[in-house]
Amino acid sequence: MNNFEFYNPVRICFGKGEIAKLSKLVSKGANILLAYGGGSIKRNGVYDQVIAALKGFKIIEFGGIEANPHYETLMKAVAVVKEHKIDFLLAVGGGSVLDGTKFIAAAALWEGSDPWEILSRRGEVNVEKALPIGTVLTLPATGSEMNGNSVVTRWETHDKLAFASDHVLPVFSILDPEVVFSLPQIQVANGIVDAFIHVMEQYLTYPVNAPIQDRFAESILTTLIEEGPKVFADRSSYDAAANFMWAATMALNGLIGVGVPQDWATHMIGHELTAFHGIDHGQTLCIVLPGIMKLKRENKKEKILQYGERVWKITKGNADERIDATIQKTIEFFESVGIKTKLADYGVGSEIIPKVVNRFIERGIKVIGERGDLTTDDIAKILEMQLK
Amino acid sequence: MNNFEFYNPVRICFGKGEIAKLSKLVSKGANILLAYGGGSIKRNGVYDQVIAALKGFKIIEFGGIEANPHYETLMKAVAVVKEHKIDFLLAVGGGSVLDGTKFIAAAALWEGSDPWEILSRRGEVNVEKALPIGTVLTLPATGSEMNGNSVVTRWETHDKLAFASDHVLPVFSILDPEVVFSLPQIQVANGIVDAFIHVMEQYLTYPVNAPIQDRFAESILTTLIEEGPKVFADRSSYDAAANFMWAATMALNGLIGVGVPQDWATHMIGHELTAFHGIDHGQTLCIVLPGIMKLKRENKKEKILQYGERVWKITKGNADERIDATIQKTIEFFESVGIKTKLADYGVGSEIIPKVVNRFIERGIKVIGERGDLTTDDIAKILEMQLK
Repeated sequence: MNNFEFYNPVRICFGKGEIAKLSKLVSKGANILLAYGGGSIKRNGVYDQVIAALKGFKIIEFGGIEANPHYETLMKAVAVVKEHKIDFLLAVGGGSVLDGTKFIAAAALWEGSDPWEILSRRGEVNVEKALPIGTVLTLPATGSEMNGNSVVTRWETHDKLAFASDHVLPVFSILDPEVVFSLPQIQVANGIVDAFIHVMEQYLTYPVNAPIQDRFAESILTTLIEEGPKVFADRSSYDAAANFMWAATMALNGLIGVGVPQDWATHMIGHELTAFHGIDHGQTLCIVLPGIMKLKRENKKEKILQYGERVWKITKGNADERIDATIQKTIEFFESVGIKTKLADYGVGSEIIPKVVNRFIERGIKVIGERGDLTTDDIAKILEMQLK
Repeated sequence: MNNFEFYNPVRICFGKGEIAKLSKLVSKGANILLAYGGGSIKRNGVYDQVIAALKGFKIIEFGGIEANPHYETLMKAVAVVKEHKIDFLLAVGGGSVLDGTKFIAAAALWEGSDPWEILSRRGEVNVEKALPIGTVLTLPATGSEMNGNSVVTRWETHDKLAFASDHVLPVFSILDPEVVFSLPQIQVANGIVDAFIHVMEQYLTYPVNAPIQDRFAESILTTLIEEGPKVFADRSSYDAAANFMWAATMALNGLIGVGVPQDWATHMIGHELTAFHGIDHGQTLCIVLPGIMKLKRENKKEKILQYGERVWKITKGNADERIDATIQKTIEFFESVGIKTKLADYGVGSEIIPKVVNRFIERGIKVIGERGDLTTDDIAKILEMQLK
């Protein structure tokens, strides 16, 4: 196991009816920006629960944060924050609203020349302060409710970029599994595969003798495989919704990634597919991961075999056969929740390959992946394999 | 899954050499009480590392905190804290030093009539403030490094009592697995079984459809079963030490206990065996748990079967046979690390039974356990079964 630091002070309030606790979680006298998305919270009752819980608080609303939250939209929110002297941000929504709110929180107190630097100059500049954030999660998927990560898209330039800071860790997050009841099938599917691949990015690398992290990762994968179909079959099953929700949170709260190598190549490549073609985040991951597993089957051999054996019970055949079977099982799982894994399924052809490769070259990124050996040529090969 | 709140802001610095980070973790200008135990930290080099890392800080030392830290000793430390206007407590040691330091932190700011109330009137009075604490762990076992729990013994009355408060959660804990290299065999053994039974208290109850919590618990149990013997066989194996240490921390940081029923009867009864006879904490747990598993085999049937199948791979025979085999495997595991499971092994006879039972009666505790149905008569039966 490698040395690590772990720090996650997010207070989780989990279960049905927990939204009512908001009034105790937000400081008295706070001047709140209520940030949300396209309005589904007004249809599913969450908005009403939030407003009822915050009776007596001063609230300014900012709706309209899109999927893959746009920098342009978020900067409008920053103007509202400054105009109304907002001192607490309450994000009510899925990963996009939460990620967007983290950027608002950091940009509102940014002292550099341009808040875009937070994303474009990641690694050179750091977020040293941010407004406090609370969240009410409405879509289990990204884990944003219990981490300090944020991904933002600049619409005009098709840039989808990430930043991370302890300063944007939510003070609290409310997770009421009943929000799952009204989700459309595609959002549940995207959530399941998103959480699944968050685990894979931290697990499917190379072994460093970290059995707790490995087994916790396998626990989350197995739970998603078992509970995902239950959520599909009966959207009103509280237990299935709760287990799916908690699995998605645990998939990316830092815990399973401590002291182990991490990959994230699937996300880096997937982000470009979303930026150029608007393909849903979860879908992009299901396109890219099988390609990476195929190309890097030697690099990732030991962990693919372990994953195949422990998660899919694949024990027959030689190593190559077991790796093939494991990749196939993974693809079948994505397809079982209705997510296609080829670019052609999304109407995208080979023209995407040079566009994505150039993006990495433009940014000066020569290699990615847990061993720093996945080159831009490899990226082209992976996309080529996943064309149709 | 039941509703729950989870909040654990302890910053974990894990790995070899991490003690050197102390100077960055403690606020500049802090007036530090360095609390430790019997002096093993002076023999194994940890004391020197701590002093070197804190060069330039103002430090007052308080050594001599015993195993099962004594209220009487801790109150002397409280006097030192007040006399020297200490504003930060650094606990360097195992669970006893950490637990003792938590009590010092709370007692130093206690505004009630007598700090003993923190323990004796638990449930009626709450710890609302405490001095900040940092820890350098020297013995993986209790999980105290990442929770807000503390157990203190009043020597004059043989009372061993616990309290818990978010206010005594350490600000940081440094976990350097190399501390394991110099531990005596009995301390490693006690640490392994203590962590193991912490998991069992949160896991071996009744099912509430919480697969993440169940699998995480099984992950920790399996890791302790696999890594424990490696630590025994080669005390200088860094990986085995690291995995044992991280398993012990995860066993009692609150995570596997969220949203599920918890037992803690083994600890409550075990504490009395320590209070009356000074039997090591880990040893008392290994005496009591098999008795509870035998007496409550119907109550705990589904989870004992699940534990037997997933952790011990016991799948043959009818339910009764599998339960018997699972209890036997558990006992053998304790014995494999040299911990005996009968009272006679510690020179204790049946005279202990009325003493322990009376303790519960005196405190007005009629029932314990996850279902609130383990009576004082049951306690007598359990001890009777474990006599020899």
